[in-house]
Amino acid sequence: MVYKLEEKLTEWRRDLHRHPEQGFLEMRTASIVAAEVTRLGFNVRLGKDVMAEDEILGKPSDEQVAAHAEWAREHGAIEEFMPYFEEGFTAVVAEWDTGRPGPVTVFRVDMDALPIFESSDEAHVPGQLDFRSIAEGSMHACGHDAHTSIGLGLATMVAEDPEAFNGTIRILFQPAEEGARGAKSMTEAGVVDDADFFIGIHIGTGVPHSEFVSAANGFMASTKMDVTFSGRASHAGAQPEEGRNALLAAASAALNLHAISRHSGGTSRVNVGELHGGGGRNVIADTAVMKLETRGETSEVNDFIRSQAENVLRGAAVMYDVECSIDIVGEAISCRCSEGLAAMVGAVANETMGITKVHHADNASAGSEDATYFMERVKEKGGRATYCIFGTELAAGHHNERFDIKEETLPVAVDVLYGTVLALNGRE
Amino acid sequence: MVYKLEEKLTEWRRDLHRHPEQGFLEMRTASIVAAEVTRLGFNVRLGKDVMAEDEILGKPSDEQVAAHAEWAREHGAIEEFMPYFEEGFTAVVAEWDTGRPGPVTVFRVDMDALPIFESSDEAHVPGQLDFRSIAEGSMHACGHDAHTSIGLGLATMVAEDPEAFNGTIRILFQPAEEGARGAKSMTEAGVVDDADFFIGIHIGTGVPHSEFVSAANGFMASTKMDVTFSGRASHAGAQPEEGRNALLAAASAALNLHAISRHSGGTSRVNVGELHGGGGRNVIADTAVMKLETRGETSEVNDFIRSQAENVLRGAAVMYDVECSIDIVGEAISCRCSEGLAAMVGAVANETMGITKVHHADNASAGSEDATYFMERVKEKGGRATYCIFGTELAAGHHNERFDIKEETLPVAVDVLYGTVLALNGRE
Amino acid sequence: MVYKLEEKLTEWRRDLHRHPEQGFLEMRTASIVAAEVTRLGFNVRLGKDVMAEDEILGKPSDEQVAAHAEWAREHGAIEEFMPYFEEGFTAVVAEWDTGRPGPVTVFRVDMDALPIFESSDEAHVPGQLDFRSIAEGSMHACGHDAHTSIGLGLATMVAEDPEAFNGTIRILFQPAEEGARGAKSMTEAGVVDDADFFIGIHIGTGVPHSEFVSAANGFMASTKMDVTFSGRASHAGAQPEEGRNALLAAASAALNLHAISRHSGGTSRVNVGELHGGGGRNVIADTAVMKLETRGETSEVNDFIRSQAENVLRGAAVMYDVECSIDIVGEAISCRCSEGLAAMVGAVANETMGITKVHHADNASAGSEDATYFMERVKEKGGRATYCIFGTELAAGHHNERFDIKEETLPVAVDVLYGTVLALNGRE
Amino acid sequence: MVYKLEEKLTEWRRDLHRHPEQGFLEMRTASIVAAEVTRLGFNVRLGKDVMAEDEILGKPSDEQVAAHAEWAREHGAIEEFMPYFEEGFTAVVAEWDTGRPGPVTVFRVDMDALPIFESSDEAHVPGQLDFRSIAEGSMHACGHDAHTSIGLGLATMVAEDPEAFNGTIRILFQPAEEGARGAKSMTEAGVVDDADFFIGIHIGTGVPHSEFVSAANGFMASTKMDVTFSGRASHAGAQPEEGRNALLAAASAALNLHAISRHSGGTSRVNVGELHGGGGRNVIADTAVMKLETRGETSEVNDFIRSQAENVLRGAAVMYDVECSIDIVGEAISCRCSEGLAAMVGAVANETMGITKVHHADNASAGSEDATYFMERVKEKGGRATYCIFGTELAAGHHNERFDIKEETLPVAVDVLYGTVLALNGRE
Repeated sequence: MVYKLEEKLTEWRRDLHRHPEQGFLEMRTASIVAAEVTRLGFNVRLGKDVMAEDEILGKPSDEQVAAHAEWAREHGAIEEFMPYFEEGFTAVVAEWDTGRPGPVTVFRVDMDALPIFESSDEAHVPGQLDFRSIAEGSMHACGHDAHTSIGLGLATMVAEDPEAFNGTIRILFQPAEEGARGAKSMTEAGVVDDADFFIGIHIGTGVPHSEFVSAANGFMASTKMDVTFSGRASHAGAQPEEGRNALLAAASAALNLHAISRHSGGTSRVNVGELHGGGGRNVIADTAVMKLETRGETSEVNDFIRSQAENVLRGAAVMYDVECSIDIVGEAISCRCSEGLAAMVGAVANETMGITKVHHADNASAGSEDATYFMERVKEKGGRATYCIFGTELAAGHHNERFDIKEETLPVAVDVLYGTVLALNGRE
Repeated sequence: MVYKLEEKLTEWRRDLHRHPEQGFLEMRTASIVAAEVTRLGFNVRLGKDVMAEDEILGKPSDEQVAAHAEWAREHGAIEEFMPYFEEGFTAVVAEWDTGRPGPVTVFRVDMDALPIFESSDEAHVPGQLDFRSIAEGSMHACGHDAHTSIGLGLATMVAEDPEAFNGTIRILFQPAEEGARGAKSMTEAGVVDDADFFIGIHIGTGVPHSEFVSAANGFMASTKMDVTFSGRASHAGAQPEEGRNALLAAASAALNLHAISRHSGGTSRVNVGELHGGGGRNVIADTAVMKLETRGETSEVNDFIRSQAENVLRGAAVMYDVECSIDIVGEAISCRCSEGLAAMVGAVANETMGITKVHHADNASAGSEDATYFMERVKEKGGRATYCIFGTELAAGHHNERFDIKEETLPVAVDVLYGTVLALNGRE
Repeated sequence: MVYKLEEKLTEWRRDLHRHPEQGFLEMRTASIVAAEVTRLGFNVRLGKDVMAEDEILGKPSDEQVAAHAEWAREHGAIEEFMPYFEEGFTAVVAEWDTGRPGPVTVFRVDMDALPIFESSDEAHVPGQLDFRSIAEGSMHACGHDAHTSIGLGLATMVAEDPEAFNGTIRILFQPAEEGARGAKSMTEAGVVDDADFFIGIHIGTGVPHSEFVSAANGFMASTKMDVTFSGRASHAGAQPEEGRNALLAAASAALNLHAISRHSGGTSRVNVGELHGGGGRNVIADTAVMKLETRGETSEVNDFIRSQAENVLRGAAVMYDVECSIDIVGEAISCRCSEGLAAMVGAVANETMGITKVHHADNASAGSEDATYFMERVKEKGGRATYCIFGTELAAGHHNERFDIKEETLPVAVDVLYGTVLALNGRE
Repeated sequence: MVYKLEEKLTEWRRDLHRHPEQGFLEMRTASIVAAEVTRLGFNVRLGKDVMAEDEILGKPSDEQVAAHAEWAREHGAIEEFMPYFEEGFTAVVAEWDTGRPGPVTVFRVDMDALPIFESSDEAHVPGQLDFRSIAEGSMHACGHDAHTSIGLGLATMVAEDPEAFNGTIRILFQPAEEGARGAKSMTEAGVVDDADFFIGIHIGTGVPHSEFVSAANGFMASTKMDVTFSGRASHAGAQPEEGRNALLAAASAALNLHAISRHSGGTSRVNVGELHGGGGRNVIADTAVMKLETRGETSEVNDFIRSQAENVLRGAAVMYDVECSIDIVGEAISCRCSEGLAAMVGAVANETMGITKVHHADNASAGSEDATYFMERVKEKGGRATYCIFGTELAAGHHNERFDIKEETLPVAVDVLYGTVLALNGRE
């Protein structure tokens, strides 16, 4: 790894950290990625071309998308690429096809930020070094700025010596991983249908600095729902019987959702994280909304919880004679890593400077990841897939306002991934 | 009133009190009534002839009916009439049609007892005088033994001098007033369709001895339901997800039933009086049953509560993916008394020895009464209807194991009713 | 009534309508009232002098109060009186003591507006005539602008001829009637302790134009509560057991609150009008707030519902191991009008030009009113109290954004009240 | 193993199977065991001597105990020992102390039957061979008849050659394992405080015939509770507010119990298996009872669920202003087997005729077992403990009315256990 790339990685990461963009709004980010990989000589596909529109989950409203497009343009988005992204279709797929026979190897990084106000604490390094978020209320608090930079670093390495490998190297820059919203639409658009190998990555997640996990198996299947109960308002003193109480429907649903049975097939979760109902103390509430999620150690377990949840929601609506609309705004499945591929990547990592320890598998539950959609599809089609974690030192946990990483991890990650390119597709 | 009848009334009442029969099981009672009115010369219609089979609510099981038929035969039922009653159709309609033009005037008394163990307290008069219930677990604790006796007394008076009146006098001996189960089927069989006047009666209900209420308006409409949730059992430790939890469906229903909105149109009630679910601590409950009732100051209010209750029950079933069956086992409506008829009966009472005070209307809520079905039908067809109360001294409240009345009230009641016959149908 | 006062009443009402101020923020209003009654020669008591600080319910935050004081000053508040009101103690009591023996007669009007955006519909008269609210989000949508004007009109009449009456005339200008928040503190400050007669008023409420109700008896006792459940957040996927779920506590409370038993003593109500809980889909909710109210046909019924509600709220907190704080933000009691006083006021109204019909009592439920605190206190001390309604034509119902009254009602109301002064305290 | 013992084992097992006795009622069983081990020369301790009275869980009522004592006497209980057992303290501890230094090795078998009606199906072997239960409603449907027989077989072997081993061999015959009720009281009486080694056993549990598990680690900690809510009855129509609704408290508790949070530390369960409330449709229910259980993969997880459950129960009582009493009627903890001891027993089994396969550990969840109390105590005191399973062919699953075992397993089990005695305490 030349020193120049190390510097470049830091520069990319800090610029992205300073300009965080939430899911499906990564217009500035995607335009910079698109410009860079185009410049490097990759074949580039953008926006709707690599996203199945019907499979997009939890997209912001048109107003939010339009407002953000304006923001992106005002903050350095590259105009040439904005037409592809300005409606909220912000995926980028960069591909280098050598024309020579050889495997199709796909890497995936994600680009989106979180709805968090970044800390203005003096001890917070991004503040000290002047790359704290300038988009108040948005923050790269999960390291996707680093992931995107690593993707660009890998692209740079690949482009530097195209004679070094055979077959095809493809890099997916995915929008909206948070809330598990973006991967499904890219999968359905076919971007991994021909993959022989697939490697997804994450940094941090509690793995110590300089350690590496070659197969993260613990992702839980998950479904995120926004639910709206719609009833009829009436004066609670004068005509209570005229009302159709959406708030009580939601309260009853919340309680019974949490009472959904455990499953002997593995760990499950259900959480109604938000409930907002009613518009006045003396009015029968005509509307109530809930944000909830289900999880399962396996897709089967999650499917059970989700289908029970739908029963509860429909039943609550029947109980109170109100309407219930369920909007699936995020979804991830579970998937096991391919052992052989993981072993191979682990071997590469083991030889890489900066990696002191390789864990061959981590089965602990580690939240949800929609990269599992790509993995499942690849495996269904006969390919191999794994998900790797680069340990780093965290200033605070993921999704915390003081989250920060150790930038030394960036070049190490690029080295491991490029080493994997050579191991899988290298010409001798 | 001749002395002989007074003695007879007491004799009937004590015999009935000693042999209480619950709703649709009044076989012995009905056979004695049928025999008596036949003997007196009335035209008599029995059983299914005066009960619409489809409209019978909350009938005991065939086994219970058959077992009771045996009991009745063993305890003095009159065999000649048992074929009409032995399947649980225990209504008797006695009619005296003079053949002369004149109004059709209908009186209604009820015959059924309650599932109560009669007190064996030494101070309890029926015990002292040896007419305590010999059918353990059944008791005339609401005075229907008195009502039946009064009906027989009235029949006796009517038959004594058929030249004294014109038109038709009809007396309904109704089964299963408790739980509001019997009147609907008699109404639907048409027994009051041609009535010009209808008078229902009750004794007690808190009205002081020797006082009389000519229009009891406060009966609440009510619906009684037996509900069964049927799910699927499974081991709660090993395979909880295989279960379909009927107990939780019932618990959720119970809670949400009580949360049904109040109604601005008047007083309402809902009560889940019994809930029984499950068959083992470590088994997901596959069945749960509930006994519940709704009430409303008006039929409209009760209809609202009942329809909401059905929503809640169906919704709870959807929530837990179980089946729900609702069995309507009792129903009463609300009805206002006809003012003119009430005034007339009040005037008669005012002139009757033994009545010291007449109340022209009592609007206080006084539970439910399915005589309202007859009243509503009569009024719909253009007739007049009222419901009267004969005050008496009670040893303890209605439905109490030490309930007892003052027998002096019986001849007074017969006098008032016979006076009413003369007032309405008398030939000068 | 001279023409000049009629014009003045309209002028006052339109100025107040244009500058609506919500409960405890009536600083501009109170300063204008104070200036006017001072000018007329009344003895005037202001702010904390006539409000028991501890009995104030649902006062806005200090920040809201301070911000509004600034607004009031910018919009014509009379600076001389602002020191009394600027901290949110906005009551005014104007008294004319003749020094001559005679009864103490107290009138009460209220001054506060509602949190409603006034209609900008072209057909809305206040918009056409340029007195639509200039304080967006506040609106006189219940006629208290008219009440205050009527109070000032009555004061003008009283001051015009002080020789016409004996004893004392006192006029209460009360803050924060909406939400039943202000009367209790004035009552506790003793402003009606010596009253012989008390007359509260309202316009509209569905009574037709030119009709008058001399005794409005249907006010329900009511309690308004703001409830906060405080638990502990945790990640719903990773450490659900670390959370203490405030949202579920609130949902369970909401359901069980609505399931509180009906009361045989009269109509009752309970409503959870708003519930807001949680701060993220995948976080165990650490906080939830509810706005709820109870009502009862009598104070006894309301007390029952309220005490059961407190049980439910405390029980829900125990269930989920969270804290629950209950803030009583409004309270009204029930009270019956004194028949004799009502008859007397009715007789005056009957003789007044512009009144075509007098209703001697209206027992229909008509929401809640905290004037009942004054009434109850007056009656406890041996005085007589009533509450009168001046019918008027409404453009839309109370609390509607297009609410508007017929201004012809104002002078009629002043006439009736001044006539009452003469009837109760007049010399001759 | 001599042929004679094989025959004897079958004889014991069939006699016990024919005379099943439920928990704390094993009077006949214990008296036969006591007589046998006394005859063999063991030092024997009985009843309260080896049971801490305060720690007994879920004991039947005194009436049930007395009635069963009569049954036992009528069905062959040995009178000499009945005084120790007739009050329901039915434990037997048989000890052979060689007087020579050496380890204290403890074996534990259980003796109780289940409340199940044994199948009368013709294909059911116990029926065919005439040892079907003669105590209708009780059945050895979990193999404890076999366990007791194995214990007697082991005792026979031990007594046959006391010179073959050093130290002490102790055999615990425990009552009331079903419902996890008996072990705690024996543990608290100190019966394993000095144990160096502890071995608990079970047959069946899904392990195939001739296979052996040397360390069953999957037992879940569990708590069984009987809960009674006591409120106040009142007429649901006339005075609903007078009631204190125990049924609604129970319904609300049931729902919120199932809504207790999952735990990241492992599998958890909660089940309200039975709920019975109320005594009449039109009565506010004054009593409701529930049978429930909690489980956890570890004691920590179960403790969490149990403490949350107690919060829910207490909270529900507060909500409805009723009393709640919680009776712990069963409790088991979780415990891991000692690896070294398990390996040793596994090695013995491996050498035993009739065992074809040894599983060194089985971590799958396998319900609950209160032998874990003994195990935990032994390990706390520095000893080693394991729990072994002898696979057998089952006619139907445990707790099924057609449950039956293969009797060939009995001598094999005795061989393995006696081999373990020699391995642990053998001289030479």
